[in-house]
Amino acid sequence: MERVEQHACFGGMQEVWKHRSEALGCEMKFAVYLPPQAGRGQLPVLYWLSGLTCSEQNFIVKTGAQRYAAEHGVILVAPDTSPRGEEVADDPSWDLGQGAGFYVNATQEPWSRHYRMYDYVVDELPQVIERNFPASDRRAVSGHSMGGHGALIVALKNPGRYRSVSAFSPIVAPSQVPWGRKAFAAYLGDDRQAWRQWDAAALIAQAQERLPLLIDQGEADEFMMQQLWPELLRTACEAAGHPIDLRMQPGYDHSYYFIASFIGEHVAYHAAAMRD
Amino acid sequence: MERVEQHACFGGMQEVWKHRSEALGCEMKFAVYLPPQAGRGQLPVLYWLSGLTCSEQNFIVKTGAQRYAAEHGVILVAPDTSPRGEEVADDPSWDLGQGAGFYVNATQEPWSRHYRMYDYVVDELPQVIERNFPASDRRAVSGHSMGGHGALIVALKNPGRYRSVSAFSPIVAPSQVPWGRKAFAAYLGDDRQAWRQWDAAALIAQAQERLPLLIDQGEADEFMMQQLWPELLRTACEAAGHPIDLRMQPGYDHSYYFIASFIGEHVAYHAAAMRD
Repeated sequence: MERVEQHACFGGMQEVWKHRSEALGCEMKFAVYLPPQAGRGQLPVLYWLSGLTCSEQNFIVKTGAQRYAAEHGVILVAPDTSPRGEEVADDPSWDLGQGAGFYVNATQEPWSRHYRMYDYVVDELPQVIERNFPASDRRAVSGHSMGGHGALIVALKNPGRYRSVSAFSPIVAPSQVPWGRKAFAAYLGDDRQAWRQWDAAALIAQAQERLPLLIDQGEADEFMMQQLWPELLRTACEAAGHPIDLRMQPGYDHSYYFIASFIGEHVAYHAAAMRD
Repeated sequence: MERVEQHACFGGMQEVWKHRSEALGCEMKFAVYLPPQAGRGQLPVLYWLSGLTCSEQNFIVKTGAQRYAAEHGVILVAPDTSPRGEEVADDPSWDLGQGAGFYVNATQEPWSRHYRMYDYVVDELPQVIERNFPASDRRAVSGHSMGGHGALIVALKNPGRYRSVSAFSPIVAPSQVPWGRKAFAAYLGDDRQAWRQWDAAALIAQAQERLPLLIDQGEADEFMMQQLWPELLRTACEAAGHPIDLRMQPGYDHSYYFIASFIGEHVAYHAAAMRD
């Protein structure tokens, strides 16, 4: 592991590391914010999963989340959004391949060799964090858009692994929208039954845990009607009796200005859940 | 004038506009954040001047200043850092020409035709803002690095025009450091006496107003010893009896992570000065 960036920030340290990932078979970067409390024992960790085209940089540069992490004594971890490198399969479009891993384990050629972001995010990365930083095993997860989908599915598929989950503008039903159908057909093949294992709206019916889903969705989000469909998740939750707090935010779009405006509330929410 | 971006942010609106600048003879973009209070009367305005290579984007994307502007009811305005366009003189290096206007009025060819950022920032832009937005004539100015130099000189050269001034990691004595000497030789020519009219450390001796200079400087700033030299300004202020609050911040570097960590205190400082 090698530290490639380090900046003092709100009394703590914003760092970026690179390491060889076993799950992905390539070198990966992740960002970690260590709040001022990092010298005093093991701290809870909020994992952030970013959206299409993003890297480990977007969250740490654009959201101002470090301020709230410093207030609450929470470590922030933000991985890249896919495997990377010349030897890693890619696609000319921006919504498939590098920068668009969709947090699944691919089963189809040429993707199956490296595209195992689910294993990376759920297993390998927390091990790296908990071994190398003053991090406890109290975990929470959040994300934006494709990363909101990622946050929902890793929480729904792993009862007991996360204390809390939230999402901004998530793709709640990837099996049913253009971004998700394109990615799932490539990574998972044509068997739509297999897709359901990676689709939050489908997973709700079989969820063993009743972890509340906190979701912020901008009403002026330019992708809401074609790609995000938050009401599908609300309907699925109501049918299954699963708790959801879907907050429609008037006037807000899909950008990081939306995330910046509400990330403080999400960090406080996760900090409280990880405190108990 | 045309609005090219608009995003809800902390209950207000982050906008980017483009317009034809008379002072610069080209089309320019500027960013303006309108806090939630913008519907209720005329608000004070904090002007932010960015550093080398920046555009109107860096401040609005990276600092999280909108949160504090919303708290205090302050409009934020961030112009680009130079004239722009194919017809505007440029230089292959990143510290001269487009993205590096240095907030002076150039007197030398080929720069003198467009490079009049001082006139733009001091006169034209405030007129545009005060005519087109719910902005009062209560003004404050701040900036980073080259823009910290800009903030200091526009305040020192215009007694009564700004209620307060601050800077992050400013170039306090451009006549004496490599970035400034290169830019001033190009824009202003070889007469070093002329340079003194655009150099904060030199202007202090003749300052007619005693506006306190609030300056934050990271002690781990990679440019401090070669380009910034904050102690030169402290010495000049002590010699002239001019008030200065130079805060050396341990561990912080030259990046926007530093600005993000302290911009809340600067916005509060300016808001208080503009409230009186």
